[in-house]
Order: sequence, then structure tokens, then C-alpha cells
Amino acid sequence: MTRITIAKGDGIGPEIMDATLSILNAAGAALVYDEIEVGEKVYLSGNTSGIASASWDTIRQNKVFLKAPITTPQGGGYKSLNVTTRKFLGLYSNVRPCLALSPYVATKHPAMDVVIIRENEEDLYAGIEHQQTDEVVQCLKLISRPGCEKIIRYAFEYARAFGRKKVTCFTKDNIMKQSDGLFHKVFDEIAVEYPEIENEHWIIDIGAAKLADTPEAFDVIVTLNLYGDVLSDVAAQIAGSVGMAGSANIGESCAMFEAIHGSAPRRAGQDMANPSGLLQGAIMMLQHIGQNNVAEKIQNAWLKTIEDGIHTYDIYVEGVSTQKVGTKAFAAA
Amino acid sequence: MTRITIAKGDGIGPEIMDATLSILNAAGAALVYDEIEVGEKVYLSGNTSGIASASWDTIRQNKVFLKAPITTPQGGGYKSLNVTTRKFLGLYSNVRPCLALSPYVATKHPAMDVVIIRENEEDLYAGIEHQQTDEVVQCLKLISRPGCEKIIRYAFEYARAFGRKKVTCFTKDNIMKQSDGLFHKVFDEIAVEYPEIENEHWIIDIGAAKLADTPEAFDVIVTLNLYGDVLSDVAAQIAGSVGMAGSANIGESCAMFEAIHGSAPRRAGQDMANPSGLLQGAIMMLQHIGQNNVAEKIQNAWLKTIEDGIHTYDIYVEGVSTQKVGTKAFAAA
Ligand SMILES: CC(C)[C@H](C(=O)O)[C@@H](O)C(=O)O
Ligand SMILES: CC(C)[C@H](C(=O)O)[C@@H](O)C(=O)O
Repeated sequence: MTRITIAKGDGIGPEIMDATLSILNAAGAALVYDEIEVGEKVYLSGNTSGIASASWDTIRQNKVFLKAPITTPQGGGYKSLNVTTRKFLGLYSNVRPCLALSPYVATKHPAMDVVIIRENEEDLYAGIEHQQTDEVVQCLKLISRPGCEKIIRYAFEYARAFGRKKVTCFTKDNIMKQSDGLFHKVFDEIAVEYPEIENEHWIIDIGAAKLADTPEAFDVIVTLNLYGDVLSDVAAQIAGSVGMAGSANIGESCAMFEAIHGSAPRRAGQDMANPSGLLQGAIMMLQHIGQNNVAEKIQNAWLKTIEDGIHTYDIYVEGVSTQKVGTKAFAAA
Repeated sequence: MTRITIAKGDGIGPEIMDATLSILNAAGAALVYDEIEVGEKVYLSGNTSGIASASWDTIRQNKVFLKAPITTPQGGGYKSLNVTTRKFLGLYSNVRPCLALSPYVATKHPAMDVVIIRENEEDLYAGIEHQQTDEVVQCLKLISRPGCEKIIRYAFEYARAFGRKKVTCFTKDNIMKQSDGLFHKVFDEIAVEYPEIENEHWIIDIGAAKLADTPEAFDVIVTLNLYGDVLSDVAAQIAGSVGMAGSANIGESCAMFEAIHGSAPRRAGQDMANPSGLLQGAIMMLQHIGQNNVAEKIQNAWLKTIEDGIHTYDIYVEGVSTQKVGTKAFAAA
């Protein structure tokens, strides 16, 4: 039995978490859950971090955290819990597989199979901003050599472990010669240690265009935090739906698993949402803690459900899908 | 006769400029050209700005500048001439129409007709970077209220002038609450002055995903410099090819027109390149200086050539195209 921390989050969070847990339990995952409260309620109780300090202890003790999407209230003072968690636990690597499941899920890019590995602690996400004068605001982008080394090495190790052929680096180092330039330079340094893996670099503008147009040209992509944020939503969406992609946030000692999408408050409580993103996060979690058999069992059942055309509204396409189902029915299938 | 400044640039630059000038002349554009030298040769002669100071006088005197792509040499010290020109001349607005020409040009998004209006002077393009310690580099993102006001007002005025129905703002203000937050706030303020034009805001990650997947959902997009750089390449490419899109850089007194793509040195000297991007820039230039009849004549001839299937290599598709031609033959057609 592995003890993990879970948080049901806000909006559609509780529904997709319940669906995911029911699947984990049905598949016989050897898990014990410690549930913590995070997100909107905690924020609105006056805690601007969105999480109580006792909850950090639980997360750190269990080391593995499965988190549903949360809502950060509008307005100043509230810190994004996603970002806080990544930094606080040193979750430097954000892994986001984006795989087309054609012909079962409609996509214009049937041959797509891209994994985006996103730096998760630095860049403009440092959140260092200040108003310099009445009319000018500054925001600081921070890039460190150890930060670049960790994530780029992770990407090459990932490619090696999963038998992937190419790692592509995206930066804008024709403009940000020192900051993005450092990332590119470290990429070139580390790439030579992996001679069996092809490596290449694209400037982010034309690279993103190529990804949106011809995603099958890419395999593993490693990039800075903000670029990775944008590219992973683009890649997941054109592969089928942002609702289908999970995300693993990996650190030296802890790891957090989640869906890449948000809490979609407008869809909440309607038994509509696609639980696939969080479920994909849970599958990566099972692999992470070594429960590979259960992971495979769930992945196969999930694939079969998708292939049978049993689809939630977001991927429902007349002619491709056979049945339009809600969250619960999807999980049951 | 209007006197304009031209620069033939590097790589494929001279070929696409010659093609564009031959079309301008054939269509009877009332133009006189002052040619200046910019780019690689100037850089390598020891001038790190890529342009001689006398050339600035020519550009400022003529006020209108048609520029082919240039090559900035690798390595430290060289400043991007594109960026320098935009800043030096106060070209705060970068207008990039991305229109699908289906069925004549292959695209997965036939109904697409998006204009991206990109802030052109601020953001991370300020180029303020420094190495803080041996291992940490900082880059400064600067956003000013007057900068936001100018570009956002420009976008709404553009929508009004061209009868466009909606302006969409993209920011990442859930993370950069002060800097991107300022852009969003000014957008909301100015939007109310244009009640006949619909307005909306998307977070850049999910917004970019929507744009890559369903570009027909957008009309005019206004955004910060770096996001605009990435989104305009994505939009142009999925509409058909980055080789098809032109760019107008507009300031209070001067304006520069160019292709959105680069100098593609590997394609140079082979009479291969598609001159459409620079030609589209030239058409926007003719509109800017009031030669609307010539602009229309060229636009129609260009459309007819594309519709006749006379295509350069980058848009050549068996079954859609009828003839694969080089730069010169395309211009002649
Ligand atoms: C919700 C937001 C803070 C987050 C991010 O920007 O990283 C999300 O978009 C993601 O990609 O996980
Ligand atoms: C060449 C480069 C400096 C430029 C930019 O980043 O603005 C280009 O990509 C563009 O979009 O015009």
C-alpha cells in the first residue's frame, strides 16, 4: 500500500477526482488516501496561498500528490497554488504527453505523439513584479544554469528511458541572448552526452508554427516554463482535447500529478466533464510509484472506452463517437 | 510620386525584393526608391547595429520603408535590426493578417481570417538582460500604460475601419498580475469606448490552443510583443504558410513593411522563395500611402495567380497546384 495525498479541488475537480478514484479502486491500485483541502474555500477563508500549512506536512510526508484543478479567486493577493506547489516542493520537471488517438478521437493530426517537458520553477513564473513608476510595470525573468541543467538532463534521460528518438529545444535566443541563450547553450552541452538521441533547436515562433502545423515532426520537446505552458496546451488541443492530457510534476523527493486543464466552473456539478486528464495524471503516478501493472490495466481499459466511442461532450463527434456520456458513465465504462 | 526607402536584405531577401519591385512597377505604383544597405554586410563591417547612421536619415526623411529579411550574425554583440528599427522609429503597432485561401492554398482551416495586432516596442524585447551571478541570468519585461493604450486603441480603430466584429485580447495575467494585468485592464477600459465591437479575453495558453485548433473563432487579436510574435507565426502557418504573410509596422510618423518570415539563407540564390510575404507587406504599404487602386490591382493579380495554382515550392501541393514555379516566374505570373 502506498499512502498518497489527494485534493479534490474546485469546479469540476470533485467530479473528475471521484471518477478517477473509482477507477483506481476498481483496478486494484494499492493506495491509501489522505485527503486535504486546497483552493477556493481555503483562499476565501483568508489564506492567500490557498493551502493550510498542515497540508504541506501531509504532502511532504506522503511525497506523492494527486491534485484536481482548483480555482484561484480573481483579484490581487491570491497566489496560484499550482505555481506555489511546484516551487515549494522543487517540482522542476513538468511532463505532458500529447498523443493523438485517431480515428477514435477526432484530430487533424493523427500521427502526433509528442511529449512536452517543461521547466517548472523558473522563468517569468518567479512572480517577481513591481510597479516602477505610475505608468511602468516590470516583471523579472530568471534563468539559472542549475535549473537549465536539471530539466534538460531530465528530458534526455526521459527520451532514453522511453526509447524516444529526438529531443527538440525551443527558445527565443535571437532576442533573449543571455537568458534563453543560456538554456540553448546548456542544451547543446548536455545533448553531446546522449549521442544515440537526435537533438535540434527551434526558435519558439517558427517552432510553435511548425508544431501547430506538423506536430508529427516532433518527439520530445524541452523548453522554458512559459513557452512550455503555451505549447503544451496547443499540443494537447490539436491532438484531440486539452481535456485528455495529464501532467506529471517531478522533483527530487516529491511529485504531483494533475490534469493540464483548469477547474471549468461553468461545467461544474453537471456530470459532464471528461475525467481523462486527471486519469492520465493518475496513470503516470502509478508508473512513478512502481505500480506498473495497475497503470497498464487502467490505460488499456481507458483506451478501450475511447475506442468504443464512449465519449464525453468535449470529444463527442457525430459519426466517430457512439455514445455521449457523463463523467460517471465514462468512469464506469 | 512617393519616395520610399527600400533594403534588399540578406539570404532570399534580394530575390523576393526584386520580384516585389517588378510587380510594383508593372502595376504602375507611383514610387521612387532610395535603396539603403542593411544587415549581414553592415554587421560584419564592424557596425553592431546592422545599419549605417546615414541610412537612418533616409528612412526618417522618406517615412516609409520596405524591408526584406536580414540575417543577424550568430554570437554576442549584434543587435536585431528588426527590433532596433521598430524601437528607433517608434513603430508601436505590428499588423499581421493571416487569411486562408482555400481551396487554392492547402490548409486545415479554410474559414480562417485573423488579423494579429502585436505590441511592437515593449515586453521582453526591451533587451534588458544581465548576468546576476555566475549562474543566474535576469531579463526584464517592461510594460507601460501608454504602450498598452496606444496598441489597444490601434486594434479597436483597425477593427472599426475594416468593419471587423470582434477584438480578442491574449495575456497571462493569472500569473503576471501586474504586467500582463495592466494590458488586460487597459483593454477592458478601452473596449467600452467601442460598443459596436465585441471584445473578449483569453489566457494565452488555452487561447493559443483554441487559435491552433479553431482559428475561425477569432477576428482581430491584440496582444503583447512576444505572444504576438509566436501567435502570428502559428496563425500564418496554419492559414497556409509563413511565406504568405506580410507585416506592417506602424508608428506616429514612420512605417516599415516587411514579410513575417526570415532570410532563409539555405534557400538563397536558387530562385525558389515565395515573394508573397514581402508583396503582402508592399500592398499594405500602398494602402498606407493612399495608392489604393494599385494595391487592389496587385492584390487581385496575386489572388488570380494563387487561384490558378501557380505556386512556389512552399505551398505546392499535388492536385491543388497546377504549376511549380520559382520566384521570378511567380512574379511574372
Ligand atoms: C493555472 C496556471 C497557473 C497553470 C500554469 O500557468 O502553469 C496552468 O496553465 C498549467 O499549465 O498548469
Ligand atoms: C527576427 C526576429 C527578431 C523577429 C521578432 O522576433 O520580432 C521576427 O521573428 C518577427 O516576427 O518579425
